[in-house]
Amino acid sequence: MIAAGRKIRMGFVGGGEGAFIAQAHRQAAGLDGRFELVCGAFSRDAHNNQRSGAALGLPAQRCYDAWQDMLTAEQTLPADQRMELLVIVTPNHLHAPIASAALSAGFHVFSEKPAALNLAQVQDLARVVNNSQRIYALAHTYLGYAMVWQAREMVASGEIGRLRKVLVEYPQGWLSSDVAGEGNKQAGWRDNPEQSGIGGCIGDIGTHAFSLAEFVAGQPIQFISAMLGSHLSSRQLDDDASMLFKMADGASGVLIASQVCAGEENPLKIRLYGDKGGLEWRQEEPASLIHRPLNEPMRVLRSGLGQPWLCANATRRMRLPAGHPEGYLEAMANLYGDLAQAIFNDASGPDAPGVPGIATGLRGMAFIETAIANHCGEAKWTAIPDLANGATANER
Amino acid sequence: MIAAGRKIRMGFVGGGEGAFIAQAHRQAAGLDGRFELVCGAFSRDAHNNQRSGAALGLPAQRCYDAWQDMLTAEQTLPADQRMELLVIVTPNHLHAPIASAALSAGFHVFSEKPAALNLAQVQDLARVVNNSQRIYALAHTYLGYAMVWQAREMVASGEIGRLRKVLVEYPQGWLSSDVAGEGNKQAGWRDNPEQSGIGGCIGDIGTHAFSLAEFVAGQPIQFISAMLGSHLSSRQLDDDASMLFKMADGASGVLIASQVCAGEENPLKIRLYGDKGGLEWRQEEPASLIHRPLNEPMRVLRSGLGQPWLCANATRRMRLPAGHPEGYLEAMANLYGDLAQAIFNDASGPDAPGVPGIATGLRGMAFIETAIANHCGEAKWTAIPDLANGATANER
Amino acid sequence: MIAAGRKIRMGFVGGGEGAFIAQAHRQAAGLDGRFELVCGAFSRDAHNNQRSGAALGLPAQRCYDAWQDMLTAEQTLPADQRMELLVIVTPNHLHAPIASAALSAGFHVFSEKPAALNLAQVQDLARVVNNSQRIYALAHTYLGYAMVWQAREMVASGEIGRLRKVLVEYPQGWLSSDVAGEGNKQAGWRDNPEQSGIGGCIGDIGTHAFSLAEFVAGQPIQFISAMLGSHLSSRQLDDDASMLFKMADGASGVLIASQVCAGEENPLKIRLYGDKGGLEWRQEEPASLIHRPLNEPMRVLRSGLGQPWLCANATRRMRLPAGHPEGYLEAMANLYGDLAQAIFNDASGPDAPGVPGIATGLRGMAFIETAIANHCGEAKWTAIPDLANGATANER
Amino acid sequence: MIAAGRKIRMGFVGGGEGAFIAQAHRQAAGLDGRFELVCGAFSRDAHNNQRSGAALGLPAQRCYDAWQDMLTAEQTLPADQRMELLVIVTPNHLHAPIASAALSAGFHVFSEKPAALNLAQVQDLARVVNNSQRIYALAHTYLGYAMVWQAREMVASGEIGRLRKVLVEYPQGWLSSDVAGEGNKQAGWRDNPEQSGIGGCIGDIGTHAFSLAEFVAGQPIQFISAMLGSHLSSRQLDDDASMLFKMADGASGVLIASQVCAGEENPLKIRLYGDKGGLEWRQEEPASLIHRPLNEPMRVLRSGLGQPWLCANATRRMRLPAGHPEGYLEAMANLYGDLAQAIFNDASGPDAPGVPGIATGLRGMAFIETAIANHCGEAKWTAIPDLANGATANER
Repeated sequence: MIAAGRKIRMGFVGGGEGAFIAQAHRQAAGLDGRFELVCGAFSRDAHNNQRSGAALGLPAQRCYDAWQDMLTAEQTLPADQRMELLVIVTPNHLHAPIASAALSAGFHVFSEKPAALNLAQVQDLARVVNNSQRIYALAHTYLGYAMVWQAREMVASGEIGRLRKVLVEYPQGWLSSDVAGEGNKQAGWRDNPEQSGIGGCIGDIGTHAFSLAEFVAGQPIQFISAMLGSHLSSRQLDDDASMLFKMADGASGVLIASQVCAGEENPLKIRLYGDKGGLEWRQEEPASLIHRPLNEPMRVLRSGLGQPWLCANATRRMRLPAGHPEGYLEAMANLYGDLAQAIFNDASGPDAPGVPGIATGLRGMAFIETAIANHCGEAKWTAIPDLANGATANER
Repeated sequence: MIAAGRKIRMGFVGGGEGAFIAQAHRQAAGLDGRFELVCGAFSRDAHNNQRSGAALGLPAQRCYDAWQDMLTAEQTLPADQRMELLVIVTPNHLHAPIASAALSAGFHVFSEKPAALNLAQVQDLARVVNNSQRIYALAHTYLGYAMVWQAREMVASGEIGRLRKVLVEYPQGWLSSDVAGEGNKQAGWRDNPEQSGIGGCIGDIGTHAFSLAEFVAGQPIQFISAMLGSHLSSRQLDDDASMLFKMADGASGVLIASQVCAGEENPLKIRLYGDKGGLEWRQEEPASLIHRPLNEPMRVLRSGLGQPWLCANATRRMRLPAGHPEGYLEAMANLYGDLAQAIFNDASGPDAPGVPGIATGLRGMAFIETAIANHCGEAKWTAIPDLANGATANER
Repeated sequence: MIAAGRKIRMGFVGGGEGAFIAQAHRQAAGLDGRFELVCGAFSRDAHNNQRSGAALGLPAQRCYDAWQDMLTAEQTLPADQRMELLVIVTPNHLHAPIASAALSAGFHVFSEKPAALNLAQVQDLARVVNNSQRIYALAHTYLGYAMVWQAREMVASGEIGRLRKVLVEYPQGWLSSDVAGEGNKQAGWRDNPEQSGIGGCIGDIGTHAFSLAEFVAGQPIQFISAMLGSHLSSRQLDDDASMLFKMADGASGVLIASQVCAGEENPLKIRLYGDKGGLEWRQEEPASLIHRPLNEPMRVLRSGLGQPWLCANATRRMRLPAGHPEGYLEAMANLYGDLAQAIFNDASGPDAPGVPGIATGLRGMAFIETAIANHCGEAKWTAIPDLANGATANER
Repeated sequence: MIAAGRKIRMGFVGGGEGAFIAQAHRQAAGLDGRFELVCGAFSRDAHNNQRSGAALGLPAQRCYDAWQDMLTAEQTLPADQRMELLVIVTPNHLHAPIASAALSAGFHVFSEKPAALNLAQVQDLARVVNNSQRIYALAHTYLGYAMVWQAREMVASGEIGRLRKVLVEYPQGWLSSDVAGEGNKQAGWRDNPEQSGIGGCIGDIGTHAFSLAEFVAGQPIQFISAMLGSHLSSRQLDDDASMLFKMADGASGVLIASQVCAGEENPLKIRLYGDKGGLEWRQEEPASLIHRPLNEPMRVLRSGLGQPWLCANATRRMRLPAGHPEGYLEAMANLYGDLAQAIFNDASGPDAPGVPGIATGLRGMAFIETAIANHCGEAKWTAIPDLANGATANER
């Protein structure tokens, strides 16, 4: 996937020492050699910020104390030196303000999810995005896996027939005990509504399950009936969510997201059944897509098979020969790869083909707010508002 | 598990040529050599009936044209010759009438599920059962698996802590196409409300998922919110059901049962999560119980481990050394074994320890009717009526 | 598979209280209802013998103190009462003497493996078998699994092309510590050359791996190069064996059998690779046969698929619908079923179609002796003697 | 694992357009951001060379027509510009000459395996390495997996007791047909003895299985008895190898390596059994290490568990939280990370802690030559020569 020698100059907001997701971004960006870290505002703590930047090889003057300073200063640098892409890996409440400012200042943005703290804020951001002529990308990393694209293609091409059922689940166990109280920072801010928004588990991983389901099924979820839970007295936000749903073209299904499934790691899984067969994909074994054609033996499509067994969209997301495992960083690197391609192509935004963008952000936030509203209300079914006209027509 | 040489004399209603479940019953009953087939009313078709009986080695005079004749005639035989246990393997609508008559005539009964066609009918049957001094057993075969008992024991003993989540699923694919229209008899009567009752999938396999969840969790499901579906225009009953549920002691969960999950065979699965760990069992690999203690490595409890790793209830349900697979017939044979033991012990009924009985039948039918009512209504949550006082106090 | 009502009268030598394999035989024979236990010489201990017989429902006079008495007495009974089939479940050294006597006395024989204590003895037995007009069956139970027949058929029909590699392994762990010294009787006599013969692990499970390889590959193993081991100072016989081998039609392979693979249960496994694809079958998950066509997605053939996906030989060995697990007892019941069919058909012996017989016994013993000779000698390769002319032409 | 900002300047020999392994090296080196590509001699074809360099962002003057030119020219550059590390990704016959020249010219070397074309050549190279004051690293990538280190640690610490059996296998299928004849370049030069050496499969992947076995077992393989095969008439070198082996401290085992196991991808697997338990690791699912303690339930150690469940050597090789898959590139990146650390530390060579080096190269070549000699000879067992004194004492 390496196409050209020039590297894209990249800056970070957030991601000082100890932050997992920032390191994942840097490793993923490093994988294909198309990005170069040139600046950062890694931490509000000035020492942490400087140390983090130094460890990453940055000169002190490009380690900024505040992201606002960074945007201002980088704008003044010569065009061949200044940052082109801003990666936002802060707690949630800062995503939208930083993204808006960065886009307005002429930078491309790759934001961690969610796009914003609430739906109104995402809608505001969407307007900025659509007017910015810059690319806005959202780190729905699971959409970077090759076999997710293969599954989507097989549904779209009718390989499993008319879609009837979608079962998606994302059971984690890491919030089974009071890890925030034990000092886990990730768990801490995630349970603080001011930093995290109104959704806990539903926002943190429910949206991954939701976006995966819509992406692979190729049809939106229209109505949901949800049950949320919170299992520790000290916990402010939900740590568990399940729901029934109905999709636009007649399929129905179940979504399960939980962070109190003790012992589970990260087995995001989706199953789809049509009148001609079924598909199953599991993030912890991402190279395999199980295909069960009706009344025929089950087949295991493996990412190394290549064409004609796999579609072009899947094949181009693989780096290694059959049987050489690829994982999460490679999936994220696929997003970075498509983002780089769009930037090289001087895309006028807001979407990079192959990369989730603001429409996914809008859908995700609408999902969170609808799920919580349904859970708290009396109605059995609640519709997810259709905000498509507030976003780009079709971001992929 | 073989305890005494005397064999229990057994008769069948239903199960003429080509009936799968009747053959399963006969094989399971044969496994431990404690039953002897002495009579039957295998089919309303007189020729089929006689042929079936002859193939099974019965003399013509004990192959009865009608089950009513059989009950009458067997009652007049000498005590050491006449049938002791009646196995009912007819379509659903006959289960209750035959069971009532048989119990009243002094025979023990092993009935295929459901116990009756609707809730009122099961309640009537329950009264007969409770007054009969005979044993009434219900073929919830999955409760005969060793590792299901092990899971139940581990939940009860607190091994996974306070129970929070129960996820149970039973996805089948065999009704993905119109197999009834293609001549499949099993599918045919199952979709006829007069023979099958008001539930399709929800009754046929939903009740298995439901009874497994209550059995292992050790607490009843109190409220459900259900979505049912029917995916063929020619189909009268539901072929798909999903629901959210809340249990009596605070756990919540999701139940999925479907017969349109194309390509799926019979992977009934249950997962339970408490604040100290999780458990997972899958019927297609019944010898393994996955245990995920919180913050420790996952363990696989295998049915051959024996005590002290497994509880006595699990250990006594195993026949073979480690690694020699046992399956569905062995699970059913476990029910037959416990039934035989109770009969040898001159149990005065109505329950054989270790065997599902009329209480399970009541719960199952209450579940079916509640699910359909909730699905058809406007309310988000519907309570499952507590009919315990209509049944035995505790049948296990 | 139930064909006729008449039951075959069966007697046992060995299998008193606590003997696993005898119970497995009785359960397997009971499964299809075609056998009736009428007599036994269960133990040399007279009390154990009578207790065992009583527990199985036999009258005292048909519980014989010695097998010689049983053969003599049963011969004098009326034809419609006397034993027809003798099942031999004693320690190894008695297999051949009892089988010879029983065949000579006009009884069919189903013997546990090995057929005899050494090669000379099997050859003597083979002459008796071939002259007896009675059926001689050998309990190579793994050859009763449906998917083993499916694998054999796929190799024979060229589905994986010209066979190149055969990898067969049978790693157990139960002899990792001194279980014989701790009182395990099974382990005790198995390590006594006078009762077990010259082979330990190589005889006990090595022969299963060997016969499976030859059966599925459809070609004999001609040359082997072996390494045996014994890992406890108190142990007399081998507890571990590995070998390279060359087959008659050009394939080569590896056979691993061990009883010191700590933690392993009973995962007998075979893989076969031809120039068009590969096959894999594992006894602990017997319903699945993995098929890897060259350059195509892997397929999982499941025993419930039925025809046309599975061959007739596989299909007729299945009892239950897809996804209802069958196991070891069902595999053994398949041997009993074919044995019953042959007896019903008044087969004049010595082979029952579908059931391993004396040729398998000859091959197995030749294998044991060759492996030990090669291990002890200097030569790299040793040929397994071809004793086919001493046995039946083709027993399957 | 990112420690300091300075990047190590890296050059490549080989790896022009279309070469898989070179891209893997570049991606792995890019992952942690500690290397910077500064020059290359990517192809003997000048256009390919320039195109490849341009695509990677190199200026034309540092894309050299020949590796000799590159060594000469880079030596003359200022110390803060010139290449520090040379990565060798050519066909095998060039590995040793280039490595020798590069070391002698003062560059660190990371060579693809094998170290050389034959044993005499590796011994010569070893002398150069040992005198060079530079680091020599060998791409035995599978030794970079976290759970391989965990397995090694568990064997070393006695967790599975005294080691008895080691079963290692590496079945691939990609040479099942004549892919070289169909134009596959990788297959082409691998089957040419002048470019590949005397070993085919035994060298290409047999050495991976061998080095993995010795690394995890912690004891050398002393004697082997081997069978090699070549399954196409057009093929010059072996495409299949199996062998029995005996290790220095009493364990014995089996090694299987094959490239004609049709349908297999890359499932390198190792199992080790001691008197207290067993271990199993499989490259296609690298995050799981199965531990079977004797007479206890099987446990699955997962790479995300962290300490104290995993040793420090395993933990520091993980980048992501539990359940986020890592794979082959991450394993290779671990070698690059340790190599970078050694260079930053101004190691005087020849070994970088944690990275396979010349001793692994010597062992591997001794293994290849011994296997072929044994296969061609009459002896049952052949000893692998101990060349330790020709290499570093202990490279890890």
